[in-house]
Amino acid sequence: MNGAQSLIRTLVSAGVDVCFTNPGTSEMHFVAALDEVPEMRGILALFEGVATGAADGYGRMADRPAATLLHLGPGLGNGLANLHNARRARTPIVNIVGDHATYHHRYDAPLDSDIDAVASNVSGWLRTSSTPDDVAADAAAAVAASFGPPGRIATLVLPADVSWLEADGPVAPLAVPGPRVVGDEVVATVAKVLASGEPTVVLVGGDAMRERPLRAAAQIAAGAGARLLSETFPARAERGGGLPDVDRLAYLAEFAAMQLSGARHLVLVGALAPVSFFAYPGKASDLVPDGCEVHVLAAPGDDAAGALEALAERFPTGAAAPGPARPERPTGPLTAEAVALAVGAVLPEGAIVSDEANTSGLWAPGATAGAPRHDWLCLTGGAIGQGLPVATGAAVACPDRPVICLEADGSALYTIQSLWTQAREGLDVTTVVYNNGSYAVLNMELDRVGAESGPRARELFDLRRPDLDFVSLARGLGVSAERATTAEDVTTLLERALAEPGPHLIEAMVPGGF
Amino acid sequence: MNGAQSLIRTLVSAGVDVCFTNPGTSEMHFVAALDEVPEMRGILALFEGVATGAADGYGRMADRPAATLLHLGPGLGNGLANLHNARRARTPIVNIVGDHATYHHRYDAPLDSDIDAVASNVSGWLRTSSTPDDVAADAAAAVAASFGPPGRIATLVLPADVSWLEADGPVAPLAVPGPRVVGDEVVATVAKVLASGEPTVVLVGGDAMRERPLRAAAQIAAGAGARLLSETFPARAERGGGLPDVDRLAYLAEFAAMQLSGARHLVLVGALAPVSFFAYPGKASDLVPDGCEVHVLAAPGDDAAGALEALAERFPTGAAAPGPARPERPTGPLTAEAVALAVGAVLPEGAIVSDEANTSGLWAPGATAGAPRHDWLCLTGGAIGQGLPVATGAAVACPDRPVICLEADGSALYTIQSLWTQAREGLDVTTVVYNNGSYAVLNMELDRVGAESGPRARELFDLRRPDLDFVSLARGLGVSAERATTAEDVTTLLERALAEPGPHLIEAMVPGGF
Repeated sequence: MNGAQSLIRTLVSAGVDVCFTNPGTSEMHFVAALDEVPEMRGILALFEGVATGAADGYGRMADRPAATLLHLGPGLGNGLANLHNARRARTPIVNIVGDHATYHHRYDAPLDSDIDAVASNVSGWLRTSSTPDDVAADAAAAVAASFGPPGRIATLVLPADVSWLEADGPVAPLAVPGPRVVGDEVVATVAKVLASGEPTVVLVGGDAMRERPLRAAAQIAAGAGARLLSETFPARAERGGGLPDVDRLAYLAEFAAMQLSGARHLVLVGALAPVSFFAYPGKASDLVPDGCEVHVLAAPGDDAAGALEALAERFPTGAAAPGPARPERPTGPLTAEAVALAVGAVLPEGAIVSDEANTSGLWAPGATAGAPRHDWLCLTGGAIGQGLPVATGAAVACPDRPVICLEADGSALYTIQSLWTQAREGLDVTTVVYNNGSYAVLNMELDRVGAESGPRARELFDLRRPDLDFVSLARGLGVSAERATTAEDVTTLLERALAEPGPHLIEAMVPGGF
Repeated sequence: MNGAQSLIRTLVSAGVDVCFTNPGTSEMHFVAALDEVPEMRGILALFEGVATGAADGYGRMADRPAATLLHLGPGLGNGLANLHNARRARTPIVNIVGDHATYHHRYDAPLDSDIDAVASNVSGWLRTSSTPDDVAADAAAAVAASFGPPGRIATLVLPADVSWLEADGPVAPLAVPGPRVVGDEVVATVAKVLASGEPTVVLVGGDAMRERPLRAAAQIAAGAGARLLSETFPARAERGGGLPDVDRLAYLAEFAAMQLSGARHLVLVGALAPVSFFAYPGKASDLVPDGCEVHVLAAPGDDAAGALEALAERFPTGAAAPGPARPERPTGPLTAEAVALAVGAVLPEGAIVSDEANTSGLWAPGATAGAPRHDWLCLTGGAIGQGLPVATGAAVACPDRPVICLEADGSALYTIQSLWTQAREGLDVTTVVYNNGSYAVLNMELDRVGAESGPRARELFDLRRPDLDFVSLARGLGVSAERATTAEDVTTLLERALAEPGPHLIEAMVPGGF
């Protein structure tokens, strides 16, 4: 058994049985070993950003890591932006970066570079396997490390000779620690805050966005008269089907400040203290209001559900408000709001929504809060190009659930190659691209930063010269696609796409600008 | 004047007047400043790998840097692979990475990451501008540093507040050092080697691939009875039109070893000592034959032309052999060789060829050696996805010259977004995609590394499930495209595309596998 086989067998025995990859020559023995270990499913991406983003989507939905397999420093570089998003999502990922053979580095061959420097940017755990006899133990350690808590990216650098040389066999999985239990005294302190009657916001995020903690949080908020909000971009929020409808903290700091205005206490549950996404001249970066005290009930990696349920016992009279209803099917001109209403009207039970619609997506969470039970996956790290890959990986993790990807036109173009992997794997993903012909968010941000804007600046946000044609792009990548120009169109096309297996793309022609 | 304006004015006065960009919120003041400094041309890319690869192509052809403008760590990550190639090409680039405002870092906002760690992977010079009063001097230093010699990537990290705050004005350019003069004693030593009559290979690369040094090298080789070879993947080779036709050292180490076999002396001129691109089990990484002595006439950054001309004076009787002739127009079935012959038959005077055809491109250099004078740009760092962006940047640098991009199907998909920038800027680029439906190079490499290959491994190199349709992809990105299925087709379509202004794509359906 060579090192690659030992590695893959160890991964499989630790429950890591999907590998999203774009391999090269230094990874050939890993690739060849896939025929020896059929339990590992290799999924090809045409670009590494698809592979890493898919691993993120997979991990968010499976609650265990997928592996990636990337080609040296440049392959890692191509995958870096979506690893950044995964780091912010606290998604467990086992990131395997193939490298030159150990003895080949001294020659500084063309593909040589400082892999560790790049990997350190995103990795919570980083190791190079230096001998074939180490690789199984390293792989087991990587899997365990990826679980955290909280979840993180464990990067294992795999020299080619470590793959190809004879190795000891696989090793057994290591124990995976569960979330850290929150102490009673922490719960008691927060209970006292909530009982004080002073204006309090409970901010949930991370693992606290699942059903159990959300129901407990809603009961607490209702019982204590506190305001319940969620972090701006949750990695995975369970919602719909009567679950508590939790407003998200706004992306725009001006609105977030209004949501938090007057709060004397901020209770953090799986979320971090809110900060402005970007800095703006003359505006605060820290969004915690002056005079507001911050209390941490559960940090990321803590048992938020347990802590909230313990706290909820002290507020037994709280009852969540009934959920909103599904919207009617929209009619008339096609707008971003109409797309949101169409999604809300037809969203199937058990759907997974990958949301990178940015400005066009403003209406989507509200329009779907009354839909049947579903999961909502957000752009966690601000690195554009996440939506399509995350949808791809989520569909691999949950083959029996429909996936809807709400995607901005500009964002779609970073990782459009995802569509090909969706077609190849027959994944049930319906992508709606909002084609408004612009980087609308930048048009808005240009004003927000207070810059004087002229035509040459605005031109850099204009995607209409030439027009992008997403129907052609999708067909070129093997995905069935149609264009919608009315609200009725988009609703009908959505229903049809959801009823048919395999991937589909709908290009929604929405008004330009913002 | 704010920091961004001061920066851009300094760049322009130092001759850097093109900026390839995919900006975000932290770069908004730079973008806004483009209206204040119209001498700077901002060119939008839909993906950062296009921007960095275009800067590489621009720098190779203009012999001076373009700027990039990238969005924090993730934007830099997306551009990293082509910066890696540019580093290997020794292309001067001024790489500007926007960052959060200096005071915003402590909040660890979603897009925060360790930019320096990633930038260090590719940068020969790296600095963060910490105040608006420093930014002009930093920019001038970056431009000077980018020239080397040899050329390198100078990365300037630009915090948002350094852009938006009031700044001192621009500064004058710094002096740019020329190449280092090679000492007479070095020339004399190499002359003695060449006069010894022992088997000698002269290996040229880098700056020695331009007309003056090549003519001198060919005269020396003929006069001394030495063998003249070039490095495997020159960043820019001037050729055709009667220039010396220099064989390249083969990519496959087995063939390279044959080319170098028997050499007692290896004279390096702008090239490094040859090493195997990858390591292979049981095969040498170092390609210098046993017992062969290596002599450096000119290291990268040295005045190779001057050294070769000084050396050529000692071999006045050498005469280059007459160049080969153009091939006939090919007929019959479409093969990768037929594409090469078609290019050779119609290549116009002054053309620039960006070559990322990989296995399919094997015949292209030979078929074009007898064409009119042109430049040939290779994949220097092995990071796939270079061809289309480099073609884009070369066309910006040389608007009066036709650009032909020879592109492998798999490679095209890493940075296919380049086509949109070509359409937007009306660039005269004709892309020929060799569609053989596979990562053919990996099929070959799987065998070369000695791995047992099964169907699950081979499947990861198969691009036919589903088929890629490059005509649809190109049209989706606003580029006119046609499919060629015969040798006559591809020749006619090439002629037509070259005769019309603006970008075109020809999808050449060539037999699969290798």
